[in-house]
Amino acid sequence: MFVLDSRLQKDTHPVANLPLCELLLMNDSQYPWLILVPRRVNLRELVDLDEHDQLQLTRESNVVAQLLLEQVGADKLNIAALGNIVAQLHVHHIARFAHDPVWPAPVWGALEPVAYTPNALAERQTLLCEGLHRLAPHWRQ
Amino acid sequence: MFVLDSRLQKDTHPVANLPLCELLLMNDSQYPWLILVPRRVNLRELVDLDEHDQLQLTRESNVVAQLLLEQVGADKLNIAALGNIVAQLHVHHIARFAHDPVWPAPVWGALEPVAYTPNALAERQTLLCEGLHRLAPHWRQ
Repeated sequence: MFVLDSRLQKDTHPVANLPLCELLLMNDSQYPWLILVPRRVNLRELVDLDEHDQLQLTRESNVVAQLLLEQVGADKLNIAALGNIVAQLHVHHIARFAHDPVWPAPVWGALEPVAYTPNALAERQTLLCEGLHRLAPHWRQ
Repeated sequence: MFVLDSRLQKDTHPVANLPLCELLLMNDSQYPWLILVPRRVNLRELVDLDEHDQLQLTRESNVVAQLLLEQVGADKLNIAALGNIVAQLHVHHIARFAHDPVWPAPVWGALEPVAYTPNALAERQTLLCEGLHRLAPHWRQ
């Protein structure tokens, strides 16, 4: 049975259950940062997904990318499956800006996270869910 | 017409022309580090690729991942489309090891690159081409 990695659980807030993935919001208000985690067990690498799941992950990644580009804009998206610290397969989607605090360096490990306030978190989660319903109305969340 | 970004050209060595992408070897012998660059013009984000090209990029990424896992092993692959410095769409594939010099941090910007010697480069390129012919014999390179 799929169980979300404890570190991911601790560091993020849930946004939605997509057809293949859990969509999570990293609890770091310095960057708009979403994470897709396929609900599959014992996967570490993208190449471990079967062909059907890879296609679905691409679809979900496209929707998350569009969501970020539409809602917050971005000078560049950073999309990455690293997993050097958390082994469970997960894919980062981060909206980067030329004025963000570590641009153009990668964000991982760069700064201590700054948690969302409860209000900012609720607002962001609502916006994301609305955006998902609009971009992918056929996905029940 | 597709022209490889000048920074990518300067920092890498060519390995093969895959059906969609140029396959490049980053000229940094500290990590086995391959880059896929779709031969399409004016693309910055993965979501800019059409559906057909996304599928082909996934196929080529899978082969590059297998190639790294088979030829050098890896504690973890880091697969990432960042592009904060080089705007032309490109996807990093880096074999990471718990004993590599910056593990578990990301490699981008971490250390000055250490160029391959001519012999080590020729050996690596030959091995990579042999591996590609074995893993994807239907792709003429």
